[in-house]
Amino acid sequence: MRTGALLFTLLTVTLSAAPTPEVLRVREWRGQNEGRILAELIQLLSLPNVAANRADIGKNADLLTSMFERRGFVVSRWETKGSPIVFARRDVDTARGSVIFYFHYDGQASDPKEWTRGAPYTPSPFLGDKPLTITAQSTGVDPDTRIYARSASDDKGPIVAFLAAMDGLIATKANIPWSIRVVLDGEEEAGSRNFNSTMQAHTADVKSDLAVIVDSPRHPSGLPTVYYGARGGSGAVIKVHGAIGDLHSGNYGNFVTDPAMALAKLIATMKDENNYVTIKGFYDDVTPLTATERRAIDEIPNIDQKLLEEFGLARQEHPESRIEMQHNRPTLSILGLEAGQVYTGTRSAIPGSASARIEMRLVKGLTPAKQLDLLEAHIRAQGFHIVDKEPDMATRRKYALIAQVTRGGGGGGGGLGIAKTSMDNPVTSKAADAIRALNQRLVQLPTIGGGLPFGVFSESLALPTIGLAVVNFDNNQHAANENIRVGHFFEAIEIFAALATMPR
Amino acid sequence: MRTGALLFTLLTVTLSAAPTPEVLRVREWRGQNEGRILAELIQLLSLPNVAANRADIGKNADLLTSMFERRGFVVSRWETKGSPIVFARRDVDTARGSVIFYFHYDGQASDPKEWTRGAPYTPSPFLGDKPLTITAQSTGVDPDTRIYARSASDDKGPIVAFLAAMDGLIATKANIPWSIRVVLDGEEEAGSRNFNSTMQAHTADVKSDLAVIVDSPRHPSGLPTVYYGARGGSGAVIKVHGAIGDLHSGNYGNFVTDPAMALAKLIATMKDENNYVTIKGFYDDVTPLTATERRAIDEIPNIDQKLLEEFGLARQEHPESRIEMQHNRPTLSILGLEAGQVYTGTRSAIPGSASARIEMRLVKGLTPAKQLDLLEAHIRAQGFHIVDKEPDMATRRKYALIAQVTRGGGGGGGGLGIAKTSMDNPVTSKAADAIRALNQRLVQLPTIGGGLPFGVFSESLALPTIGLAVVNFDNNQHAANENIRVGHFFEAIEIFAALATMPR
Repeated sequence: MRTGALLFTLLTVTLSAAPTPEVLRVREWRGQNEGRILAELIQLLSLPNVAANRADIGKNADLLTSMFERRGFVVSRWETKGSPIVFARRDVDTARGSVIFYFHYDGQASDPKEWTRGAPYTPSPFLGDKPLTITAQSTGVDPDTRIYARSASDDKGPIVAFLAAMDGLIATKANIPWSIRVVLDGEEEAGSRNFNSTMQAHTADVKSDLAVIVDSPRHPSGLPTVYYGARGGSGAVIKVHGAIGDLHSGNYGNFVTDPAMALAKLIATMKDENNYVTIKGFYDDVTPLTATERRAIDEIPNIDQKLLEEFGLARQEHPESRIEMQHNRPTLSILGLEAGQVYTGTRSAIPGSASARIEMRLVKGLTPAKQLDLLEAHIRAQGFHIVDKEPDMATRRKYALIAQVTRGGGGGGGGLGIAKTSMDNPVTSKAADAIRALNQRLVQLPTIGGGLPFGVFSESLALPTIGLAVVNFDNNQHAANENIRVGHFFEAIEIFAALATMPR
Repeated sequence: MRTGALLFTLLTVTLSAAPTPEVLRVREWRGQNEGRILAELIQLLSLPNVAANRADIGKNADLLTSMFERRGFVVSRWETKGSPIVFARRDVDTARGSVIFYFHYDGQASDPKEWTRGAPYTPSPFLGDKPLTITAQSTGVDPDTRIYARSASDDKGPIVAFLAAMDGLIATKANIPWSIRVVLDGEEEAGSRNFNSTMQAHTADVKSDLAVIVDSPRHPSGLPTVYYGARGGSGAVIKVHGAIGDLHSGNYGNFVTDPAMALAKLIATMKDENNYVTIKGFYDDVTPLTATERRAIDEIPNIDQKLLEEFGLARQEHPESRIEMQHNRPTLSILGLEAGQVYTGTRSAIPGSASARIEMRLVKGLTPAKQLDLLEAHIRAQGFHIVDKEPDMATRRKYALIAQVTRGGGGGGGGLGIAKTSMDNPVTSKAADAIRALNQRLVQLPTIGGGLPFGVFSESLALPTIGLAVVNFDNNQHAANENIRVGHFFEAIEIFAALATMPR
């Protein structure tokens, strides 16, 4: 999966806000401790962390526990049916309130053979093409240095930046006026299946004045990014059935059903010539954008043309509105097609079936169940009989068009990924202001395109919630050569210091 | 690839014609030599014969050479860039003329693990589920016995039946009034790539008064079948390009091109709601059926409903006319679709491209080149820019819809498979009459659905040509458990005896 290599020059804008004295002291402290901070990151990145491997995940949880305990956190380990959730709290008697931060410590599996810079669990610093050595004694590390490793950006880098911010604040004797809670998800890349129920079981612990979900890359403009919602995934595999078995295309062409053609005709009815979904009612329940949200989008540097250049495309699907606007609309994409043989053989056979994987990314107001119902109604309206398993002979003989629909498989946190909170909430606005003060620019996205368990905090726990994206856009998340740019990592330390010391 | 298990009861019809005395004597002789005949078949079937294996193919050519020499044939071996072609001739001084028979001795590769009756090169006789032993001493073999082995029906069984007919005629001192030539293709299953040029290089040897192409199963009605033409294949892979690389469906859904959707929309335009191809000019050059051809089709037992039952379908693509009629029309079938992942993963990515393999089976009057030109014109008419290799960045940035079209890959003998000869030719009519006389019924197909190098004889060498199908329809040709029914095999001996002794 390709992520772009877009780099924007930050615009210089003079605004009244500026980094607070606390943040400036942390910046100075960081300059004296770069090697030590990066060495801790490299240590954490050295641990394999695929959620399916319980032993590996346990080692990560152990190391994280000791890392948080070193900073005065009281750490609990909440076991689940999957990976343990590590919960760390650092309470302050005189606290103005509490802020909970979400990170995840698992990562996607990766084939080392695809990596050209180091290997998934051999963290490898590079400056451009040049490999570097970083030790606890390193100083003056070039901000363009990148550390290549699985989870460098997604999502261990932000954890270590957060801990460095705590170290810096403690070392510089800053007043930390908030009780801090941190929840570390150990199976985000596996769908966070046990996350919501575990949070519900520990409501008293996690209830906070503000939730900050730290995941995702920054907006492609390169600016620090806060988001207020996400698109949750939903999907289905549609298998159109023809004859029972593949049949000689010479002997039976013009006679038996061509299921790949039937599937193509079905899919083709799902979007119009302007790429709008034609499924009846598909957009009906979308929560419209508020004036604040529209204004926030207007203020973001427009990156549409840069993206088209990067991706080698002549035009976008919806030239009538920019990508950040489109992220607030649901999608319907064909993620896969499979029938017979294209490149892997030359068998002259009409396949017995043809399948497509359809994914819908849904926005606030929509539910997977209802959208899938609408999808099925659309399939029926095209003349198909829908079955939920392989059709038997009587069914095959009765219906000329048969579609087997299997729901599931959507990415992006499923139903709990569909969420959006108000941009007009005073608590979240304060958090955004604290980040904006660092360099006078901030991208605020009403909804990010991808998904994560945003709704666990914003809907299920009903907390004021923001998403925070601190890592470089071109981090190759989920792919080979995942990396974090050190300059972004250093800036993340300041962002966390600003949030931990923000006024109420 | 599934072939049916349809069995029809032969209708009893009383006509004036009857087997000739020569054929009746061969029938009696066969009754006394069943074990010996079948043992020779089993010997030939024991040799692996995939065209790609030169050593194996050489052993087949050697054995066939000695088999034909034993019957008084003079055998030549014509080397080609691929498998050798074995040419055998048995000239008669007082001949009325000459007949050339075509068979092929190679077979399709097969995975022994898929076989439940014996193995590809371990010929295994069964009566129903019961394994049998057949030796040269066997007598009274049940006609329902089947011998399971690769090439049992396609196409070694017919070769051995032909040789048995020659044996029988010689043993019963029949007058064989024709010089006989036999050409044995060693790479039919690999596309007969060198066949036409080799025939052209040996025109004087192969020129005959009648060519009989012996391949294919009988019509599903079970009757001996003569055909006068074939459909030749032609095809293309269409690859629709989206972004360079797969992209996160959450981040870029509603923004980047969805190539699987674009491909589906393109394919969907190629056939109308009645399953007629909408490509402009697609049917224009089809040679229409003659009155004789229409009458021949009318006389064939209608098998449409039986096929639909067999294949588990509610209706055929063209209920307005029977399958034998549809075999005289060109097809357009989608043999494969490939994009992203359907069942093999759950990556949430919009694929960078989506591909389809399209096959056209063409009938007399059409050429692959022109039909592919029409296909490309149709693709352009849908707004696509066509490229013949991966598009470069400038091309990607210029055209919103890009289709990479790679011609090739059609089954069925390519351009030389497209052929049809007159059913009103007196020579071919005599041959048909000789076969019909055996049991008073004969299926005559103007065009068979599948392909074989029919045009090499009928067009390139311009000989009066018929195709002859002697083996059982349910022979599992090209699949596991290929077999030949002994009753059909015995009847084939009589068919060859009738042809070798037919009047001029």
